[in-house]
Amino acid sequence: MQTPWEYRYAHRTQKMGSSVIRELLKLTEQPDIISFAGGLPAPEVFPVAEFREACNRVLDTLGAQALQYSTTEGYTPLREMIARHTARYGIHVNANNIAITSGSQQALDFIGRLFINRGDYIVVESPTYLGALQAWNAYGAQYISVPSDENGMIVDELEKALRIGPKFIYVLPNFQNPSGVTMSLERRQKLVEIADHYGVPIIEDDPYGQLRFEGDHLPSVAVLDSRYRHDNGSYTGNVIYMSTFSKLLAPGLRLAWVIAPEQVIRKIVMTKQAADLHTATFSQIVAHEVAKGGFLDEHVKVIRAVYKERRDVMLETMDEVFPREVRWTRPQGGMFLWGILPEHMDAAEVLKKAVEKKVAFVPGAPFHPTGGGQNTMRINFSYTKPEVIREGITRLGMLLREEVAKNARQKHLYD
Amino acid sequence: MQTPWEYRYAHRTQKMGSSVIRELLKLTEQPDIISFAGGLPAPEVFPVAEFREACNRVLDTLGAQALQYSTTEGYTPLREMIARHTARYGIHVNANNIAITSGSQQALDFIGRLFINRGDYIVVESPTYLGALQAWNAYGAQYISVPSDENGMIVDELEKALRIGPKFIYVLPNFQNPSGVTMSLERRQKLVEIADHYGVPIIEDDPYGQLRFEGDHLPSVAVLDSRYRHDNGSYTGNVIYMSTFSKLLAPGLRLAWVIAPEQVIRKIVMTKQAADLHTATFSQIVAHEVAKGGFLDEHVKVIRAVYKERRDVMLETMDEVFPREVRWTRPQGGMFLWGILPEHMDAAEVLKKAVEKKVAFVPGAPFHPTGGGQNTMRINFSYTKPEVIREGITRLGMLLREEVAKNARQKHLYD
Repeated sequence: MQTPWEYRYAHRTQKMGSSVIRELLKLTEQPDIISFAGGLPAPEVFPVAEFREACNRVLDTLGAQALQYSTTEGYTPLREMIARHTARYGIHVNANNIAITSGSQQALDFIGRLFINRGDYIVVESPTYLGALQAWNAYGAQYISVPSDENGMIVDELEKALRIGPKFIYVLPNFQNPSGVTMSLERRQKLVEIADHYGVPIIEDDPYGQLRFEGDHLPSVAVLDSRYRHDNGSYTGNVIYMSTFSKLLAPGLRLAWVIAPEQVIRKIVMTKQAADLHTATFSQIVAHEVAKGGFLDEHVKVIRAVYKERRDVMLETMDEVFPREVRWTRPQGGMFLWGILPEHMDAAEVLKKAVEKKVAFVPGAPFHPTGGGQNTMRINFSYTKPEVIREGITRLGMLLREEVAKNARQKHLYD
Repeated sequence: MQTPWEYRYAHRTQKMGSSVIRELLKLTEQPDIISFAGGLPAPEVFPVAEFREACNRVLDTLGAQALQYSTTEGYTPLREMIARHTARYGIHVNANNIAITSGSQQALDFIGRLFINRGDYIVVESPTYLGALQAWNAYGAQYISVPSDENGMIVDELEKALRIGPKFIYVLPNFQNPSGVTMSLERRQKLVEIADHYGVPIIEDDPYGQLRFEGDHLPSVAVLDSRYRHDNGSYTGNVIYMSTFSKLLAPGLRLAWVIAPEQVIRKIVMTKQAADLHTATFSQIVAHEVAKGGFLDEHVKVIRAVYKERRDVMLETMDEVFPREVRWTRPQGGMFLWGILPEHMDAAEVLKKAVEKKVAFVPGAPFHPTGGGQNTMRINFSYTKPEVIREGITRLGMLLREEVAKNARQKHLYD
């Protein structure tokens, strides 16, 4: 039965498709499947007992405040904690440079609302984060892809892209989702220089920066930029930096933050007033209560140890069972690695067969907004327990050996 | 110091102003002021002890789930509870007709995204809810105001408005924010008939419907419409109905819901995927844990009793101290009443003097998107304790007597 609603959607809904990843997740949610497709943190590391204690303390001492409406920019003690925390990594900002958002996805949406007019170009790494593309497609963004390698975005290709006149550059420098790759210090420096030269600002999305298992921490793009961009302790730089509690505490709280010059924060706050008034007061106060007093630093060490073990088991098993024609990244942190099949192989086709063998991953094509990447795949190592990783990667390896051999025979036939 | 950001805002940000109410609230947030300006629930009725118990039970039994990512449409047991609850009020829907949003403000924002193209007309009551105007201004909405009286929107004026070709009609039939007025049953029926005749759908915003202190519950517009609009138990009607836990449990959770035909819910879910993935899992599961087993029904009775006492004290004091030239509404529920000063008086000017006397309200003009209402004021009775209401209304009454007399003298001078 038809309703009057269906003739009344605004033109912007025509481009709106359901999330490719979400649809795939449905396929891979059968209980007997070993799924490397999701992007979920390990539930085993959620600090449930600490949350329980924090909820009790907050409701005993701040109950009425925690359940009431609150300010749009976010709970001030939480923003101050983020400012202190961020300063240790070299980003010197004050609480007025920080807005709390309902997850990083909301920060991406607000950036789209604030900056993207229909048809505007955005420079992205190729591959890049699918959630950002979803957020910005709704505003009619177009994309310029800059290729990346094992050191991140190939910055030498950036100047060509900037002369097209993009609105901003979007990068995920640490253990990128989807590729697991980290941008080298040299490239970060060059990125900041070129962006500054052309006057094009940068969005730095850093959900995983603290989840480094090995190697040295690299200064964030905002730090490289902000060295000479302060005004009485307030950040006035060329970079909007985003991070989240989803990977450090728990994604079910929907708590992330944006760091930007104050004038941008004011615009984000106005946007948020009209969009959802404020992020849940209770989530913010409880997260502050859990994180404060040094708990977060100790807890991050636990997460690093758990994820490192899982990554190690995954890489070891891949070394044993994957065919030598397949390549993959060896991330120094984060939650994902990236597989590259021989050219002309289609990862989406492989996924269909993988689901029959009860193992799943995400095909890489949707992470490439200007095409390509059909032979790539994103593999998550954070969610699944080590013994299950070994089993799942073994199944996937056997399938890949068959598929690679088949591909080689077919290729031979047409040679 | 200028940054590259400020030249890069999208055209849609030019119309974005900071919330008038929020700016006024800042003025009235001095600690010694008696403020009837806000729209806050009474913190004394927040069920803090029940929240504490619910948090403990949820973290003991569902800890990993409550802290993890979850589905965009919302926690299924919560949606099923809302469906059962709603059925008791005559709206027969299933969980697929319901999406959870991060507060009603987010539902209003999504409705704007889905349905409003720049320049589209929306029919509103005059006065109407400011949060809806803020949400829809961002999408370039224009408004057609239909006047209202003590029985709500004057539906006889609606046909003229519908022939202009609006995208939808927006109404708050119960104890409207800002006016406190309830639309009569006869007008609700006529609204549904006329809207159906012209094929124009209705948004019914009902945050206060259950906060009725006296008189009989009136069927919602969705019920009147939905009598003959079901398809195998799924709602397929002409009305999108919204309500919220903000006034029943606690606004700090940011939990509201939208009821609509399944095709509209699917579009809202797609919008929410790109906007913030999902509403906080923890808030949803804890709210369900608090509300279930009949607690919500008992708790609503407590809220009604507290708010009724406050309304009664306010009305009694107004009867005593307000000058007879001022009129005001006598709401049967909700959180607000509406004052009407003599014509040519300016409530914003009165507010400035009121703040000097340490009492505050919200001037009514911003609730009129097509102009007018300079002589009106919104007065909240839910937040302030009875003895403080008496003191504040007495101060306001003294000021109004002075101002009304001054106005009469000036008017006399120019007669």
